[in-house]
Amino acid sequence: MKVWVINAEGGIDGLQMIDRDIPKPGPGEILVRLKANSINYRDLSTIKNAAARGIAGERIPNSDGAGIVEDVGPGGTAFKKSDRVVGTFFQDWLSGSIHEGVMASALGGPIDGLLCEYALLEERGALHMPDHLSFEEAATLPCAGLTAWHCLIEGGGARAGQTVLLLGTGGVSIFAQQIAKASGIRTILTSSSDEKLDRAKALGADVLINYRDCPNWEEKVMEATDGRGVDLVVEVGGAGTLEKSIASVRVGGRISLVGILTGGQMDPTSIMRKSITLQGIYVGPRDMFERFNAALLQNDIHPVIDASVEFADAKEAYRMMEKAGHFGKIVVTI
Amino acid sequence: MKVWVINAEGGIDGLQMIDRDIPKPGPGEILVRLKANSINYRDLSTIKNAAARGIAGERIPNSDGAGIVEDVGPGGTAFKKSDRVVGTFFQDWLSGSIHEGVMASALGGPIDGLLCEYALLEERGALHMPDHLSFEEAATLPCAGLTAWHCLIEGGGARAGQTVLLLGTGGVSIFAQQIAKASGIRTILTSSSDEKLDRAKALGADVLINYRDCPNWEEKVMEATDGRGVDLVVEVGGAGTLEKSIASVRVGGRISLVGILTGGQMDPTSIMRKSITLQGIYVGPRDMFERFNAALLQNDIHPVIDASVEFADAKEAYRMMEKAGHFGKIVVTI
Amino acid sequence: MKVWVINAEGGIDGLQMIDRDIPKPGPGEILVRLKANSINYRDLSTIKNAAARGIAGERIPNSDGAGIVEDVGPGGTAFKKSDRVVGTFFQDWLSGSIHEGVMASALGGPIDGLLCEYALLEERGALHMPDHLSFEEAATLPCAGLTAWHCLIEGGGARAGQTVLLLGTGGVSIFAQQIAKASGIRTILTSSSDEKLDRAKALGADVLINYRDCPNWEEKVMEATDGRGVDLVVEVGGAGTLEKSIASVRVGGRISLVGILTGGQMDPTSIMRKSITLQGIYVGPRDMFERFNAALLQNDIHPVIDASVEFADAKEAYRMMEKAGHFGKIVVTI
Amino acid sequence: MKVWVINAEGGIDGLQMIDRDIPKPGPGEILVRLKANSINYRDLSTIKNAAARGIAGERIPNSDGAGIVEDVGPGGTAFKKSDRVVGTFFQDWLSGSIHEGVMASALGGPIDGLLCEYALLEERGALHMPDHLSFEEAATLPCAGLTAWHCLIEGGGARAGQTVLLLGTGGVSIFAQQIAKASGIRTILTSSSDEKLDRAKALGADVLINYRDCPNWEEKVMEATDGRGVDLVVEVGGAGTLEKSIASVRVGGRISLVGILTGGQMDPTSIMRKSITLQGIYVGPRDMFERFNAALLQNDIHPVIDASVEFADAKEAYRMMEKAGHFGKIVVTI
Repeated sequence: MKVWVINAEGGIDGLQMIDRDIPKPGPGEILVRLKANSINYRDLSTIKNAAARGIAGERIPNSDGAGIVEDVGPGGTAFKKSDRVVGTFFQDWLSGSIHEGVMASALGGPIDGLLCEYALLEERGALHMPDHLSFEEAATLPCAGLTAWHCLIEGGGARAGQTVLLLGTGGVSIFAQQIAKASGIRTILTSSSDEKLDRAKALGADVLINYRDCPNWEEKVMEATDGRGVDLVVEVGGAGTLEKSIASVRVGGRISLVGILTGGQMDPTSIMRKSITLQGIYVGPRDMFERFNAALLQNDIHPVIDASVEFADAKEAYRMMEKAGHFGKIVVTI
Repeated sequence: MKVWVINAEGGIDGLQMIDRDIPKPGPGEILVRLKANSINYRDLSTIKNAAARGIAGERIPNSDGAGIVEDVGPGGTAFKKSDRVVGTFFQDWLSGSIHEGVMASALGGPIDGLLCEYALLEERGALHMPDHLSFEEAATLPCAGLTAWHCLIEGGGARAGQTVLLLGTGGVSIFAQQIAKASGIRTILTSSSDEKLDRAKALGADVLINYRDCPNWEEKVMEATDGRGVDLVVEVGGAGTLEKSIASVRVGGRISLVGILTGGQMDPTSIMRKSITLQGIYVGPRDMFERFNAALLQNDIHPVIDASVEFADAKEAYRMMEKAGHFGKIVVTI
Repeated sequence: MKVWVINAEGGIDGLQMIDRDIPKPGPGEILVRLKANSINYRDLSTIKNAAARGIAGERIPNSDGAGIVEDVGPGGTAFKKSDRVVGTFFQDWLSGSIHEGVMASALGGPIDGLLCEYALLEERGALHMPDHLSFEEAATLPCAGLTAWHCLIEGGGARAGQTVLLLGTGGVSIFAQQIAKASGIRTILTSSSDEKLDRAKALGADVLINYRDCPNWEEKVMEATDGRGVDLVVEVGGAGTLEKSIASVRVGGRISLVGILTGGQMDPTSIMRKSITLQGIYVGPRDMFERFNAALLQNDIHPVIDASVEFADAKEAYRMMEKAGHFGKIVVTI
Repeated sequence: MKVWVINAEGGIDGLQMIDRDIPKPGPGEILVRLKANSINYRDLSTIKNAAARGIAGERIPNSDGAGIVEDVGPGGTAFKKSDRVVGTFFQDWLSGSIHEGVMASALGGPIDGLLCEYALLEERGALHMPDHLSFEEAATLPCAGLTAWHCLIEGGGARAGQTVLLLGTGGVSIFAQQIAKASGIRTILTSSSDEKLDRAKALGADVLINYRDCPNWEEKVMEATDGRGVDLVVEVGGAGTLEKSIASVRVGGRISLVGILTGGQMDPTSIMRKSITLQGIYVGPRDMFERFNAALLQNDIHPVIDASVEFADAKEAYRMMEKAGHFGKIVVTI
């Protein structure tokens, strides 16, 4: 089988497609024939900083993939051949709060990921795909989709009638927009592109702010909330936007902090003065993924796929991610 | 002004329309010209069991009313003349958990209610009506509407993708259906009438069960949830249905218990064996009402009014409630 | 090795000690040489109602045991030979909320228990014993100890300054007393024996009620809380006491419902009227057990062992449980 | 009566003692004869930055005071003459989450405080003192005491068996130590003084770190938690210590952020990477104060008073606060 691997020197150009033997599933494992991957900023960052993240040998990148069960390990009952499945970002985080122990089980980082034709997954590290989704759509769920759900609903506690601030039109923000719309939650969404704002409006975004036209966009947020501020921010932008997010949230409000931050510093004074809760969120556990899938199915939500490239052209997907001009998700078909 | 009062002997026939002076608002009070009331089963029960509930003199019934601010007490700033307002069920429950202290402030029971042309309300016991609602619609919110919101969302913790069981088509159940629909929550709704089931379907109910045709309807609920049971029941029926509700809920699930129960007994064994949480819910605090109103406005929800009678014919409204054949709410226009 | 097994006909007298081969641990398993068991009412009930619970063949009883790791399955790293370990009641409930899937993994019911000289446990179904405890003490934790912790702290949310009602002096109630004392929580404890009340007082119980002397003991509870009622009841007594517990709890309070109920019926009206939360609790997950163990260690809590019998005399332990006159826990040494 | 007021130019030296008439309580108010105040860093900061905080005229400083009810406004029933009472920091925050509306009701900032012989308080802005406390002790509760309780218990969710990091020996940290001890919570406490560490040890602190001897004290914290990190930090030190606190907390842990920060910047990356929750906490509502008082009474906790000065020498109390060398609280007797 063909697999893509990260090169010791790192970088998109260093990615190599090599051959490996198709593995046999042991007890508790399944062999999955991958049909699609999606790309996250974290995957790009891992490729570019492989050495710094302790990746030495030939590591397969990408946390997110969906495919078909090809073989089931001895005694396995959770899945059968031909089942359509999607992997979990953390193979070992089943439920409950995050803890140190799950970190080493993240696909496409400390262990091999899914940019390959076949992969072994733990039975407990895979779920049945929602029936209404294609492989490409399901492949967008494990990292960006579940993160958005966690930020907004199970971590953020947002509900109908609340107002949430979403930053930009990357994978997490667009998922959050779709979940919010289905949940009766009002959204304020920012972008530097009027064309993207139009697309977000079509997804139900209630208030649209072009931050290029309006550098003090936190003032627009306050106007749109009658001077009160939003209940929740899904903060994907990093230190550059965090201070504006803090200025945009109401007294007693919440910020879900997510994604690979661009660095920079922030002043914590306002967090205290406004009694804000700033919660770091890192994907989520398996049982939360199941609840998220139920929400997608019930509300017939289809992930927004901005671009799709062939397996052989996978480098192109990372270059798109690098340019950061996408709306929703970039996928690789296998 | 004209006011309806409960007679010492109780009962619908004992209700009397009498004259009283229009009162003057003191500090912290507003005078409201009522435009509409809605009727709850609790109001009927109070009228029929007045003596047993310690009501001796001429007590104005009804907890739920909406109207126009006619006068503001000295120093009042929260409202101004002509504001459209709705009262809160408990005049003294502002926020936080319920406690004994709020019980004596329930309108239309221990203190006078709103079936009258003018009434004094505490400033803290009134809210601005949602802009998109008529007086009749707003008058349905304080008891049945807020109870449904509390049962489903803030007490019940339901969210998109979960499945909720609703019993019948009374005020609370129909509100719960509307809130669930707006929140991406799947519903299973029971009724003895196919015509009412059709109306519920039009409101978005996902699974409809005629419990007359299907006395073991808990089995239908299990089928509709792949043998798992619902996440939440909004239990309005009382002891008669409670055991079926317990049979219908999943392991670890929840039952929001509401309304004036019809009596009867239940066996608590299954609550323990299935690790069910059974939570008694009694309307809700003022700040929860504000959050509920925001959800109604954001999702353009209009309460379902089944019948509307004139102030002079108020007895007729209670007779309709007694027959229990309604779908949604019964209102009185003033 | 010697193992006790439940006889098809059930009952204490039907228990038989037989020989079995010592098993070999497979991947993910450990072999434990048991040093102690503790007995719960559920174990007695299983023995007496074996057929009704679907137990056909020779089933080893008892959920609770502690011992020494004798062998580790291939690839196992969580434990090593000679580690002192205690099993978890549900071998498959690791964290998060309870769900149907864990039920079949309860030791000493649907699968073999620990009244034997050696047993295989899942690695994920065992924990290191707290350092300060003996095997006998550790053997009391998995069911009664963790249940008390769940009822009081993680499910009940009790904290310093609250008042909790404990019923009787069985295993769960005495554990709850010890946890409450260490957590700054005030307790009211009932018993029919002044001698046991004295022993409870020595453990720090704040208010003691002899329910034989005072059949309307809920009135004493109200007096002891200035007419307000307790914040939480750990309800182990069943339907017979549940109505008194409901009368004893404050408006908005909570009842943790636990144990094998003695049957009977209850009227749910007061649950609604007082906005009570009644939560069925069934032991708890593995990670909660770890948190409980940390609390025991930090506060140097030693479980109260009322009686200890030899392995060969195990029937005697069940007979003591049947008489229900114990204070704390009954253990079997192996 | 004598009152201290803040001078327009600000600063401790600008404080003036002047005469005012003793006011008469209106409806819903009580007149309190103050017996003691306590000083918080916030009071010092207000005095020194009066103009920047919009204080123009003669404003009485200090949020925290206890005394005797001297007179009750018309119709008042919550208190009677001679009752021993303590004020609440926010006169208008009764229960539920913080919101913008309560900010203007903070004593000793936007409105007059309690460094005076007599003051009017809202009935809803006062509580009965815990019976076991003196006026000096009760005067320490409203800001520092309640903040510590909120940070540790109701906001922080700490419970028996968890480990909490406390920074320094100021009022909040020492209250947190006392509450933790009573609640079975393990503490790690830092100070630059071995003498203060000894005093903290006498209060039950489990692990003591002299941060002057050990500048990389976060490493000591990790050692003391077997490399895992603490469950909770009560962060009073500001940006200077925040990065070390973040390094000291476990994956999925929590930081309660409190106090007037010393400025500076922080890097939010670790908050995301370790899934930390950073919650700004600003005192707490009235009903939380009642629950805190119950915990003090049940556990016979007496606040630690480091120094006590006379009313006439009040400036001296602020100078002590400025030197920041205290252990626990500084009070003013009146």
